[in-house]
Amino acid sequence: MSTSRTPTGHVSATMERFATVRTLTEALVAPLSDADATIQSMPDASPAKWHLAHTTWFFETFVLRDHFPGYRLFDERWPFLFNSYYEAEGPRHARPMRGMLSRPSLDEVLAYRAHVDAHVERMLDRSDLAALIELGLNHEQQHQELLLTDIKHALSLNPLAPAYAAAPQPVRVSGEMGWDQHPGGVVRVGHEGDGFAFDNEGPAHDVLIGPFALARRLVSNQEWAEFVDDGGYRDPSLWLSDGWAWVQAEGIAAPLYWHEDAAFTLSGMARRRAEAPVTHVSFYEADAFATWAGLRLPTEFEWEYAAADHDPARGVQLDTAQGVQPSGSPGLFGDCWQWTRSAYLPYPRFRPASGAVGEYNGKFMSGQCVLKGASCATPRGHSRTTYRNFFPPEKRWQFTGVRLAKDL
Amino acid sequence: MSTSRTPTGHVSATMERFATVRTLTEALVAPLSDADATIQSMPDASPAKWHLAHTTWFFETFVLRDHFPGYRLFDERWPFLFNSYYEAEGPRHARPMRGMLSRPSLDEVLAYRAHVDAHVERMLDRSDLAALIELGLNHEQQHQELLLTDIKHALSLNPLAPAYAAAPQPVRVSGEMGWDQHPGGVVRVGHEGDGFAFDNEGPAHDVLIGPFALARRLVSNQEWAEFVDDGGYRDPSLWLSDGWAWVQAEGIAAPLYWHEDAAFTLSGMARRRAEAPVTHVSFYEADAFATWAGLRLPTEFEWEYAAADHDPARGVQLDTAQGVQPSGSPGLFGDCWQWTRSAYLPYPRFRPASGAVGEYNGKFMSGQCVLKGASCATPRGHSRTTYRNFFPPEKRWQFTGVRLAKDL
Amino acid sequence: MSTSRTPTGHVSATMERFATVRTLTEALVAPLSDADATIQSMPDASPAKWHLAHTTWFFETFVLRDHFPGYRLFDERWPFLFNSYYEAEGPRHARPMRGMLSRPSLDEVLAYRAHVDAHVERMLDRSDLAALIELGLNHEQQHQELLLTDIKHALSLNPLAPAYAAAPQPVRVSGEMGWDQHPGGVVRVGHEGDGFAFDNEGPAHDVLIGPFALARRLVSNQEWAEFVDDGGYRDPSLWLSDGWAWVQAEGIAAPLYWHEDAAFTLSGMARRRAEAPVTHVSFYEADAFATWAGLRLPTEFEWEYAAADHDPARGVQLDTAQGVQPSGSPGLFGDCWQWTRSAYLPYPRFRPASGAVGEYNGKFMSGQCVLKGASCATPRGHSRTTYRNFFPPEKRWQFTGVRLAKDL
Amino acid sequence: MSTSRTPTGHVSATMERFATVRTLTEALVAPLSDADATIQSMPDASPAKWHLAHTTWFFETFVLRDHFPGYRLFDERWPFLFNSYYEAEGPRHARPMRGMLSRPSLDEVLAYRAHVDAHVERMLDRSDLAALIELGLNHEQQHQELLLTDIKHALSLNPLAPAYAAAPQPVRVSGEMGWDQHPGGVVRVGHEGDGFAFDNEGPAHDVLIGPFALARRLVSNQEWAEFVDDGGYRDPSLWLSDGWAWVQAEGIAAPLYWHEDAAFTLSGMARRRAEAPVTHVSFYEADAFATWAGLRLPTEFEWEYAAADHDPARGVQLDTAQGVQPSGSPGLFGDCWQWTRSAYLPYPRFRPASGAVGEYNGKFMSGQCVLKGASCATPRGHSRTTYRNFFPPEKRWQFTGVRLAKDL
Repeated sequence: MSTSRTPTGHVSATMERFATVRTLTEALVAPLSDADATIQSMPDASPAKWHLAHTTWFFETFVLRDHFPGYRLFDERWPFLFNSYYEAEGPRHARPMRGMLSRPSLDEVLAYRAHVDAHVERMLDRSDLAALIELGLNHEQQHQELLLTDIKHALSLNPLAPAYAAAPQPVRVSGEMGWDQHPGGVVRVGHEGDGFAFDNEGPAHDVLIGPFALARRLVSNQEWAEFVDDGGYRDPSLWLSDGWAWVQAEGIAAPLYWHEDAAFTLSGMARRRAEAPVTHVSFYEADAFATWAGLRLPTEFEWEYAAADHDPARGVQLDTAQGVQPSGSPGLFGDCWQWTRSAYLPYPRFRPASGAVGEYNGKFMSGQCVLKGASCATPRGHSRTTYRNFFPPEKRWQFTGVRLAKDL
Repeated sequence: MSTSRTPTGHVSATMERFATVRTLTEALVAPLSDADATIQSMPDASPAKWHLAHTTWFFETFVLRDHFPGYRLFDERWPFLFNSYYEAEGPRHARPMRGMLSRPSLDEVLAYRAHVDAHVERMLDRSDLAALIELGLNHEQQHQELLLTDIKHALSLNPLAPAYAAAPQPVRVSGEMGWDQHPGGVVRVGHEGDGFAFDNEGPAHDVLIGPFALARRLVSNQEWAEFVDDGGYRDPSLWLSDGWAWVQAEGIAAPLYWHEDAAFTLSGMARRRAEAPVTHVSFYEADAFATWAGLRLPTEFEWEYAAADHDPARGVQLDTAQGVQPSGSPGLFGDCWQWTRSAYLPYPRFRPASGAVGEYNGKFMSGQCVLKGASCATPRGHSRTTYRNFFPPEKRWQFTGVRLAKDL
Repeated sequence: MSTSRTPTGHVSATMERFATVRTLTEALVAPLSDADATIQSMPDASPAKWHLAHTTWFFETFVLRDHFPGYRLFDERWPFLFNSYYEAEGPRHARPMRGMLSRPSLDEVLAYRAHVDAHVERMLDRSDLAALIELGLNHEQQHQELLLTDIKHALSLNPLAPAYAAAPQPVRVSGEMGWDQHPGGVVRVGHEGDGFAFDNEGPAHDVLIGPFALARRLVSNQEWAEFVDDGGYRDPSLWLSDGWAWVQAEGIAAPLYWHEDAAFTLSGMARRRAEAPVTHVSFYEADAFATWAGLRLPTEFEWEYAAADHDPARGVQLDTAQGVQPSGSPGLFGDCWQWTRSAYLPYPRFRPASGAVGEYNGKFMSGQCVLKGASCATPRGHSRTTYRNFFPPEKRWQFTGVRLAKDL
Repeated sequence: MSTSRTPTGHVSATMERFATVRTLTEALVAPLSDADATIQSMPDASPAKWHLAHTTWFFETFVLRDHFPGYRLFDERWPFLFNSYYEAEGPRHARPMRGMLSRPSLDEVLAYRAHVDAHVERMLDRSDLAALIELGLNHEQQHQELLLTDIKHALSLNPLAPAYAAAPQPVRVSGEMGWDQHPGGVVRVGHEGDGFAFDNEGPAHDVLIGPFALARRLVSNQEWAEFVDDGGYRDPSLWLSDGWAWVQAEGIAAPLYWHEDAAFTLSGMARRRAEAPVTHVSFYEADAFATWAGLRLPTEFEWEYAAADHDPARGVQLDTAQGVQPSGSPGLFGDCWQWTRSAYLPYPRFRPASGAVGEYNGKFMSGQCVLKGASCATPRGHSRTTYRNFFPPEKRWQFTGVRLAKDL
């Protein structure tokens, strides 16, 4: 096997990055018991233990098994358990059954991580694997966010409303909703250049955008309460047809986790803060709210174009397990992922990567909506202007919020 | 009430058009018994009798009730039965229960049509109602197509495979799949000008398109059979994730209505014609086929741009109840509606019409795909280059087919 | 084939009976259009046309096909359509799809009946077939009742509440609920002797019964309204666990077909008559009502023992299509089938008949409850003291009512 | 409050019995982690932790809360979590959500048990509470069995097939299936006298039984394999109609937990032992097997009558957590609960106990079948000749088996 080694300086940066990401994942499960880490609250969500193991399986499979000479699997039966959806990697445990895995225990999964880390660390100087390892780390960062939103959902179903971790930060900003005007034109969107990006962010290409304005802050809990009080959830004229059917079928009358004047948070049940950004709303709700307000959601291209001079690493994003909650950020990033009116579709001339990792993004390009920005649960440094997050229009267990737009 | 009368010449043209459309609907149910016209095969489909009555309800409600001085409803209980989905028009009979309406009988519904027609004909000189009446006629033409696809589905579930009407036309064309090349650029799309169009076709606006090629004909049954024989329905790497889940859950292995070497048609079970365009495929299947072929589906804008110099009234489209079946047409229109890779979304600055008719299109703008062209069941003269048909990606009881595209 | 001919006098009685039963079935569909006779309102129910054809299929299959030399099927494709559940007779049309059979038409099915009748009539002197023909006639009588209850259910789902036939008879009796006392002991139950009975009515055997009293009349609408007003449908302590789950899941709050002070009947929507027997209640409701009243339901053996000196041909039972509605009868028979607390199980030493007709009763002996008596839709002369009707405990589209019992 | 104290000798026996039962429950969870004890595999099953807490809630509620002066609840929020189905005790956590309770932890639940035990022990000399405490202990013994069958089901869904505890005992007996003949007659059934029994076992009463024979041992795995090999699961003529529908819908082709030549056991996956009693079969399977064998299941009364001179404390029953598996017992008790052909119905003159504990048995008297005997998971000493276990006919996660009967 022909391999290429990278210079030492780069290696130590890679090692630090590898350690930082892997350590944060483990820090995020530190508040959890084995039982907490085992339960699965719905097919959309996965147990925390599963996230720990699946992100490790990614490195074990695509880095160690495929590239580490003589590597033996930690446990030959585990790839069946911890493959998520890679058809090319063979059969796998049914997703809705992940909550049945009381074994292996949390400690065994942590031992698996240590074992795989020790081997991957010996590969970090392999420049031919750098892109794959970087993909693995970005993959893990996505699961850090899911781990938090999934455990929030699971704990929310416990009538005891247990807290995951200490209380959130105070709300920092609010006030009038100002508008930034943008002239539009033929603009460049999508990823180009050297840095890491997922395949769905490219190819970069030109799009034609009309003049529009974008709100300077997210819609707040107080504004959403006005929508509720005005009968927003009972007026079909505000809703897309599918959205109205969803509201009726599910008995939706408020954002997820609202309970009268309180809301369930990662710190337990807490009084709802009027000035904080509203979160845990679906695309259908976001669209209905915008219609009610006489405004609209931005397209993903408008948002990306407007974000050109914003720093993706600023705002309320994930640094530690404590205080994960939207709290009000200046800038376009942080607090909540922002629903756009753009369907999640391939960019012109998009081609998925070859091999199993090509299943990462492209095959989900139907029936979902693009979200831009970053949330309070997005690891700081993970997001980008070109980042395309995506979820089905009725989902709301992510930290999803609303930034309004209007035509000029 | 202030009304305005239109000049005589225009009136006679309007009367002829009104009579033509209304008469064709009744011609389409002529082959059906009361029982045929009563049954409903699935919630997506409606009984033929219901189509007859609903299109009449549209005129009775929006033209007669709202504008005909002193008009009394034909039957006060019927609007509840024959409103489709207009929330602003109040409660209505549940859609999946339409097949329970053995009463009113087919004869009573035809009497309802005669009654409403006699009244509407006295309003055809009202220029202030011309747009509304034209909307009603276009609405009825859409239901003509649905009437045929719905009765086809219902009859297909009868083990006796009864024929709706006489045998289809012979296949006219086929041969090599040629390609038309298009340079792209900033092009104008969407409806503008005087003619009738649905609100979802506007506003006209510019889009930026790259160079591409569009196939000169639709994919044929024979080509689809090769896809089947090559294991196309068993290879997850060809499918969108939602599509693969659908294939697995529903046990999909061929287009709808295929039975070994035959297919169910509106003329009963018939040998499948290899050279005819494949039809009754879902978006998921269309997309998987294109992936298998190393090609892709066009966007709605590419298709519209390419269709600029095509005559929408040519090709195999609906003229009479006989021989409704894709048979091979030159040009972009006719035979089958063509799936695009475009999600059905609002055009920039789109605003739904005000009032109940504003519910016609806009509220369906999520989760569906745009189809372009026209099918063998589309009334000739109904379609346009800017026409945006739309269906969810798994539906296939319409005459839906595939025209391929590729990047240049 | 060895056959035996029966004496002439018996034949003419058989011919009259055959003609009477077959004619009544056709009289029952006389008020129906082809469309009425085609629709199916739920998987439990069948279209009227299907009942017409299925009862004919029974004769065509078990009498003509098996015994008429050289008989050719009326249509070779129809046995697939009109077999109900006889596994031994091969595959068959899925029950929930029976409502898709707009073809054959009602007229074609009536022609089928005439054809089969003409052939069967030539077999009526065959003494070796007498039992089979008698089974076919009793089978048809059961379907006469189902035809009425099924069309009632279908018409009830039409918001126009169409009437099937002319208005019901006036209520005849009511008054205080008297009690007949019975000492019990070792008593004989089950069918023995020469007359026709279904296999599930035997073998006759002894059972031991304690002393009990049985109400002289059925529970009335007025008594049921008191149960409703007293919160009977909201008090879980009155209900069996499965019954309470059913009430909660289905939102049950009154007998089927009750609408405020009215009820849907075979003559359309009508004011509810307080003194008439309550009907269209489930076993769960019957049991909860009895608990509320501090009483209980009888066992099937208590009922049969008490009925020893009652005439099964008296009371409100089916004579013509008009006025089918519980109206108050003296005696134990008529008005409504009466839920017992007995599970429908095989009698000791029960053996099903051999061959396909052995599937008639025995295979349903789990999960159902025995009902005794006869209803207003039971053809007069069809029922017996030993008759065991049976339905699942939550069903209520039959004319089912309540006769109370108590221990002495 | 008037209380009565019992003599010392009785108290120490009661204390020993209380300690023995409570200790065994905790011994049964000793092999489980907090995560094992948290998961719920289906709505029918409950987490081990929940069984621990629910049985404790029973004592806390009905003994301490109602009778211990000044008792304060261990945690005021827990009764909502650990009430099972007592409507009279108010709202409660939804049964299918029990698996979401990662908190309280296993340790906290064990502390709850210790707290409640300490208080109950101070009440054990109260003769007026003796019956209630005895009910609580018998209730807990039932949950010991459920705890084992529920954790077996949960672990069986883990692809790693983890073992709960050490290997089962060797098979002890087998050989020819002999028959005991019984003359029948009017015999006494049901509980009478001083010992503990559930309310559903009474009142004692006479029933009339015909002559019959009962098999001396249970049906074995080998005999069941012959049924499988003979196409037993593919022949509808052997099955009750509901059973055949269940086989078709669920794809049933063997007892639960069979995997080719192995079976999942509480000691993990193990080779199947031909001579051991078959277990984990439904009533539908038991009935079909009996039909295939030309025999039948006994009634509950036949079984009880035949068991008159059998010792309920003999046979393979639960003593410790190790080796819980049917292994072959002489006598009528042990190894597997035995399906009877009797529906679970109230005995004549049955009245449920008053108050919440009256919901214990009576409300389940519909749609279920009686099982007699005891299983390898039944705590030794818990069962009786008159014991009436009951489950729905399709359930098979209990240790359920088959003893055959025949008419004489």
